Amino acid sequence: MTKPGHEAEIEQDEAARSRGVYELDSDLVEAVEEALDRGDGASVRTLIQPLHDADIADLLQNLGTDERREFVRAIRAEFRPGILAELDETVREEVIDELGPVGTAAAVAELDTDDALDVIADLDEDEQQQVLEAIPATDRALIEEGLAYPEDSAGRLMQRELVAVPSFWTVGETIDHLRRNADEAPDNLPSDFYDIFVVDPGHRPIGAIPLSHLLRARRPVSLTDLMTTEMKVIGANTDQEDVAFLFRQRNLTSAPVVDDGGRLVGVITIDDVVDVIDEELEDDMMRLGGVREDDLYSASVDTARSRFGWLLLNMGTAILASLVIGLFDATIEQMVALAVLMPIVASMGGNAGTQTLTVAVRALATKELTDANALRVIGKELVVGGVNGIVFAVIAAAVAWLWFGSVAIAVVLGLAMIINLVVAALAGATIPLMLERAHVDPAIASGVFLTTITDVVGFFAFLGLAAWFLM
Amino acid sequence: MTKPGHEAEIEQDEAARSRGVYELDSDLVEAVEEALDRGDGASVRTLIQPLHDADIADLLQNLGTDERREFVRAIRAEFRPGILAELDETVREEVIDELGPVGTAAAVAELDTDDALDVIADLDEDEQQQVLEAIPATDRALIEEGLAYPEDSAGRLMQRELVAVPSFWTVGETIDHLRRNADEAPDNLPSDFYDIFVVDPGHRPIGAIPLSHLLRARRPVSLTDLMTTEMKVIGANTDQEDVAFLFRQRNLTSAPVVDDGGRLVGVITIDDVVDVIDEELEDDMMRLGGVREDDLYSASVDTARSRFGWLLLNMGTAILASLVIGLFDATIEQMVALAVLMPIVASMGGNAGTQTLTVAVRALATKELTDANALRVIGKELVVGGVNGIVFAVIAAAVAWLWFGSVAIAVVLGLAMIINLVVAALAGATIPLMLERAHVDPAIASGVFLTTITDVVGFFAFLGLAAWFLM
Repeated sequence: MTKPGHEAEIEQDEAARSRGVYELDSDLVEAVEEALDRGDGASVRTLIQPLHDADIADLLQNLGTDERREFVRAIRAEFRPGILAELDETVREEVIDELGPVGTAAAVAELDTDDALDVIADLDEDEQQQVLEAIPATDRALIEEGLAYPEDSAGRLMQRELVAVPSFWTVGETIDHLRRNADEAPDNLPSDFYDIFVVDPGHRPIGAIPLSHLLRARRPVSLTDLMTTEMKVIGANTDQEDVAFLFRQRNLTSAPVVDDGGRLVGVITIDDVVDVIDEELEDDMMRLGGVREDDLYSASVDTARSRFGWLLLNMGTAILASLVIGLFDATIEQMVALAVLMPIVASMGGNAGTQTLTVAVRALATKELTDANALRVIGKELVVGGVNGIVFAVIAAAVAWLWFGSVAIAVVLGLAMIINLVVAALAGATIPLMLERAHVDPAIASGVFLTTITDVVGFFAFLGLAAWFLM
Repeated sequence: MTKPGHEAEIEQDEAARSRGVYELDSDLVEAVEEALDRGDGASVRTLIQPLHDADIADLLQNLGTDERREFVRAIRAEFRPGILAELDETVREEVIDELGPVGTAAAVAELDTDDALDVIADLDEDEQQQVLEAIPATDRALIEEGLAYPEDSAGRLMQRELVAVPSFWTVGETIDHLRRNADEAPDNLPSDFYDIFVVDPGHRPIGAIPLSHLLRARRPVSLTDLMTTEMKVIGANTDQEDVAFLFRQRNLTSAPVVDDGGRLVGVITIDDVVDVIDEELEDDMMRLGGVREDDLYSASVDTARSRFGWLLLNMGTAILASLVIGLFDATIEQMVALAVLMPIVASMGGNAGTQTLTVAVRALATKELTDANALRVIGKELVVGGVNGIVFAVIAAAVAWLWFGSVAIAVVLGLAMIINLVVAALAGATIPLMLERAHVDPAIASGVFLTTITDVVGFFAFLGLAAWFLM
């Protein structure tokens, strides 16, 4: 019963597993780089032959900019369209430049509509026009329809290919319809689908039937008896973040998408949503780190430029903090220990505030932090800030006392620590809430506000108390 | 053809969409809180009647600790097991405490094996034993088998229920088998499935058939002609992060899981993997922010305690920075402007380094940063650090010159800025790489190493250059 081929398949697979699930290793990358150096396109083609499209995309991303161009030139004649769908945006632009409009159009025409749309949407308008003109008319029409939906909307995410059947059909009629289509017009069927949708005469979805339910029902069963009407219908203009939220909240695997008239125009499946979830979380993580977007593959100059804005903002914050210190230069001149100790309070405030901020930004993104529990969360963070404030006040005061032998400095440092950690907790919890209410992305802007506050309050509390008590 | 009920369903849904896809609002939370205050359990039950399990879980998370207990008491008699699967870990513990072992066992027994396993695995050993004893023997056996797999492994993630058929069957025989099972032994079938697996006599998977392919094939077609053998077979002990990587890399929707003998024991579907991806990215984000794990629902004392460690580490860093400043107290005493300006260099280094660090930590997690391109990435970050270092050196020097009228101070500040931004770039790129190689999670430990370096180098470069040039 077992074919030798299958045995081999599984063994090969087990080897892959032991290598850690990943098929691209640095030996292979080096071998490709050497072949490119030798200008040996044939070797390059042989080396990548066994690789999955996604691994070739990774390989491309591992190469330098010049090597990437040579690589694309080497494989141009047998370029696999699937590679385009797997590439990072920055690298994809380079590849598309090298392929040219005609080469790109040929590749895009072979992709699924949602992948094609994704590739085309990232091009600038001129390139878009050039590539679209080189694509066959029917494919072009579908892509242009997709481009008409707003960026990051359900309309961009959905697959156009779906199976919709009238509600008066039976299971048998549906299966016959699928078999007939498969024989006579396979292009009418999506290559993979998980649900069929039952529509009314106006093509509005009234129910969904998972394939596993269709398969186990007897032929005479009516679709209306089988379908679930408790499905989530998504408007084509719905933002993709809301789509992702809905899929996670309801554990959906697929959902019908309707136009403004309520007519079924597409279907979104969970695998499309995975990319959105991924992208969304990665964006939040990058923004909290002060990076506009993942710039791993961008050129140095572009990276330096895109990170400049955030650094400039922080420079402003740092200067503001210096101005606060400048207010107390006379005090520092008299007691240089203050200059030595003052970064501790500001630094601890920044770190404690960032902890609160990170939790709050994430909770806002998952809708776990809402108006209903905002006050409770702020209250809790204040308690946490107070408790850790007192603990670290004691530690810092002990250090200052041992170091400088002055009880007064120790007390001032401790008091400033408590003040700054409580302020940091308050700021860390409320800044994201206020930004969210002002419709500003909390991930992108919270950090700079927070450190401004913790620096200013940290230096002012410590030096101000010192000036007041010690002078 | 259209039933009024369906019309109503869709309209209701459109209202939900206009409310922003979410059905839980703060009015509802307030109404429930008031009912709880009045001790009016009947009202609570009526209010939550129309809600989805996931929304009830969110509602519970929106309540305070005491209210949660009252809420569980109010709905105990008609507690829906699905709520347990949707709850955050911390809140779930509270709910399970309130339900008691017998109540929890009753709920768990109704869940799917993977959800049941998830709930049970989070309990401490005593509770686990108590709950397991109260669960019917067959369910208990399945859960105990699952618990035998390592935490965070494919074995914990997989669903046990699957459809496996012999390779000598035809499409017709397979469909008849499913229909017969649905009538006679519905418990033998998973409630939802996307693929059927073809197995050899040793129950080893040799192929997979997506349901959409099965449905459109004619009855006499043999399964071996229909199945794809290019499937990824996952070992039950594979780490869930590798599983998630594989699903994303290969765009899988489901994959068979095998035991050490290569026998098919379960199936992992993309919806299980979504939670892993989510969790993994959230963990990285939290750790970069200095939080061990999302602690939104933890009690204040637990939160304060869990955040203490990170703050203590940072306190050590801050004291180290103070020690460096202390080396130059005589210099500062002579020129207090140095104390005013010194935080700027350290702060800019910390921010620029964090940018690099964030990109590097993420790229390591996605296997985009590898041995093959490590040197290229470090080189690029050094260029970025150098470029921004020069730009900000000019800006900072101008500010210092305008403020203190001293060219010497301006030059020192500018030079220190370049040094620290280049060091920050080097540290931000290499620290995560070194930690990864030492098998330490780069997300959790990189930040504290980085700020130690940027603080120490920032203060030392600025004050050291000042001492050398100006004194």
